Amino acid sequence: MKEVSIGLIGFGTVGAGVVQILEENRDVLEARVGVPVRLKRIADLNIESDRGVKVDRSLLTTNAMEVVRDPEISVVVELIGGYEPAKSLILEAFKNGKQVVTANKALLAEHGPEVFQAAHKAGVDIGFEAAVAGGIPILRSLREGLVANRFDKILAILNGTCNFILTAMDSTPGVSFDEVLKKAQELGYAEADPALDIDGIDSAHKLVLVLSLTHGIRVPPRSIHVEGIRNIDPFDVAMAHEFSYKIKLLAIIRRDGDNVDARLHPTLLPEDHPLARVDGVFNGIFLHGDMVGDQLFYGRGAGRESTASAVIGDVIEMARSAARGEAGRVPPLGYPESWKASGKLKNISEIVTNYYLRIKAMDRPGVLSKVAGILGEHQISLHSVVQKSRQSSAAVPVVFLTHLAKEADLQIACEKISRLDDVEGAPVILRIEDETLN
Amino acid sequence: MKEVSIGLIGFGTVGAGVVQILEENRDVLEARVGVPVRLKRIADLNIESDRGVKVDRSLLTTNAMEVVRDPEISVVVELIGGYEPAKSLILEAFKNGKQVVTANKALLAEHGPEVFQAAHKAGVDIGFEAAVAGGIPILRSLREGLVANRFDKILAILNGTCNFILTAMDSTPGVSFDEVLKKAQELGYAEADPALDIDGIDSAHKLVLVLSLTHGIRVPPRSIHVEGIRNIDPFDVAMAHEFSYKIKLLAIIRRDGDNVDARLHPTLLPEDHPLARVDGVFNGIFLHGDMVGDQLFYGRGAGRESTASAVIGDVIEMARSAARGEAGRVPPLGYPESWKASGKLKNISEIVTNYYLRIKAMDRPGVLSKVAGILGEHQISLHSVVQKSRQSSAAVPVVFLTHLAKEADLQIACEKISRLDDVEGAPVILRIEDETLN
Repeated sequence: MKEVSIGLIGFGTVGAGVVQILEENRDVLEARVGVPVRLKRIADLNIESDRGVKVDRSLLTTNAMEVVRDPEISVVVELIGGYEPAKSLILEAFKNGKQVVTANKALLAEHGPEVFQAAHKAGVDIGFEAAVAGGIPILRSLREGLVANRFDKILAILNGTCNFILTAMDSTPGVSFDEVLKKAQELGYAEADPALDIDGIDSAHKLVLVLSLTHGIRVPPRSIHVEGIRNIDPFDVAMAHEFSYKIKLLAIIRRDGDNVDARLHPTLLPEDHPLARVDGVFNGIFLHGDMVGDQLFYGRGAGRESTASAVIGDVIEMARSAARGEAGRVPPLGYPESWKASGKLKNISEIVTNYYLRIKAMDRPGVLSKVAGILGEHQISLHSVVQKSRQSSAAVPVVFLTHLAKEADLQIACEKISRLDDVEGAPVILRIEDETLN
Repeated sequence: MKEVSIGLIGFGTVGAGVVQILEENRDVLEARVGVPVRLKRIADLNIESDRGVKVDRSLLTTNAMEVVRDPEISVVVELIGGYEPAKSLILEAFKNGKQVVTANKALLAEHGPEVFQAAHKAGVDIGFEAAVAGGIPILRSLREGLVANRFDKILAILNGTCNFILTAMDSTPGVSFDEVLKKAQELGYAEADPALDIDGIDSAHKLVLVLSLTHGIRVPPRSIHVEGIRNIDPFDVAMAHEFSYKIKLLAIIRRDGDNVDARLHPTLLPEDHPLARVDGVFNGIFLHGDMVGDQLFYGRGAGRESTASAVIGDVIEMARSAARGEAGRVPPLGYPESWKASGKLKNISEIVTNYYLRIKAMDRPGVLSKVAGILGEHQISLHSVVQKSRQSSAAVPVVFLTHLAKEADLQIACEKISRLDDVEGAPVILRIEDETLN
């Protein structure tokens, strides 16, 4: 077996983590793998600042194309993120016969088919375990260990920033979203521009990748119904609590015969559900396979060493397949292009679930009956109703939990409710994952 | 890519599950894998009784040697368990160039080196994901996805029967071990002869396999300190509860520099620890990797479909590597013989942990001070002491929780305590996993 040389593009947080692991855990890696892995080249626009890891300065270059064309390099690790120049570099690496490892969920979610087809055509592999749930080996588990299963249900917390914010709102009654976001930014758990995380875009990219591996359905993120957590109100967090729920930003994939219901939104989850206990920056994936039943995977979904651990896992697999001389001869198990679709994506209007509705209504006789009447007309039956406070003249919040209802019906009903004279504004709508309400 | 033919030896519960999955999920398997998998032969001593799955009778044989020598079969699935004839059949399969998938933890724990070396020599692979934690893809995760990590700590619930019994004892105050065992037997969760499970032998086999994959330490199960749950007393379950602990049968692997502390025994675990919530027949693995931090894997550790799911996962990997024509050319990642040992196993007398001690002492002045004195002489300091009831003349239970102490010191101290006139019998000793006590 020969030595395997890797080239790193992007010497940021995760890149430095990769260098750190290759250095600190060289002995275990060699003991376990039997193939020496050598870091041959590191490309970054900034090759001056100190990343806190020891690096031979002669490895550094500002020219990433040098790395993807270096004939001595067999595995390219792309960690710059974003669409360009990441995509061009990856495609050029393929053309040069290199295998690629990436954590770039945005690129793969938006341009996956193009990238995977190019890899297949070039006869090389691409690893992307680090793109979903950081150090948790969930993609490998879904496509290898659990390959025998139809995935009936997947519920997943895939963004640590959002989970940190929701956990803090849950544990500090009355605190606003904005206050917690500010704290998360101070602690380094949220970016200065937090939109990618809090608007659910990052989670949606990951959802799209999981959907392609579990159901063979390849759709762009814009086909998925996505709601972020920006509008979560402390009142709803407190009400959820009263009903023994926690609010989590969940990626949801449910199989319903040949149809698949895939969506991402804040969700009320019973507080004794295994995912309800996944707190802070942790990620968790709860799934039901038709053969294995319920499983939970839990761990750090982001961060330098955790994400770098997933990158190294893929690099080692690549290194070994390079050493075996087998790279790319057969598309690796579970690669999107080798999976046939096993279902059709449902439109959000077709989904059936339980709902939490909050309206602001004048506390006058007959209002509740009008609202309940509209819901009833649209086949929405109620599990519980709670009116929080009685103040003679002001509008008071009223919360409804529904039995199973169809999204299209619910939206029409809510539209009608919002037009009632005694109701202020549009209802707040949150979805619930709780089979006991059905 | 060609069709891959498999031969099944052992048509019991899990074997029938394998047949069921190949039949029921044929479409997803083909969509994901691209290699048709055909069941060509099934061997069992009993080929008459109905297993509830459809099988062409011409596949059945009572002669397992026919299966391992069939030139058309490329993957042999061994599910008869035990040492012989399982070992001879597996070795013969290797000699005939076949890859092997097995769930046989006893065989691999006791004769792993011989079996793995034979596979390596024959240039074939052996898969055994199903041997540990049923359908949870933990072995693959440890040796592939988490390959970049040193495993500082692994705590695992690996036996569903024991966990069912301990969960039932915890939720039914005062119920005895024997009563719960009987109930577990009635429900089919415990064997008529339950010794393998309740004496910790099954868990110890699994522990030995995990230890070889995570630390490269290959030792026979008898080198490991093993205590089962047969002597768990409802009084200790209740006391644990009072201290906010749950008693779980844990496989524990801790790295301490170059030494490794590996043992299996009932353990007091804080009730908010993720593993304390793994109840009933479920298994759970909690680990700390130096790069990924804490992770939890949770799921069904036994049962027909769940174990069969793990078998099929390995079969598919074998099928694909057979289709690639690469089987056995390089020992698969993380195979025990390719891992160098990264530490030395500690003797149980050298371990340092926290202890729960219960003695039965006459309620006379000075007894407690004598006991505490002996503990102090042996460098064992106390975190808490609880004397349960005051009855003038009878012996009363007294419970001590200790700070970190060395096992050798504790055993000597307990030996001295048991010889005190005012103490009845030997102390009950349970170990605690709770860093807040240190």
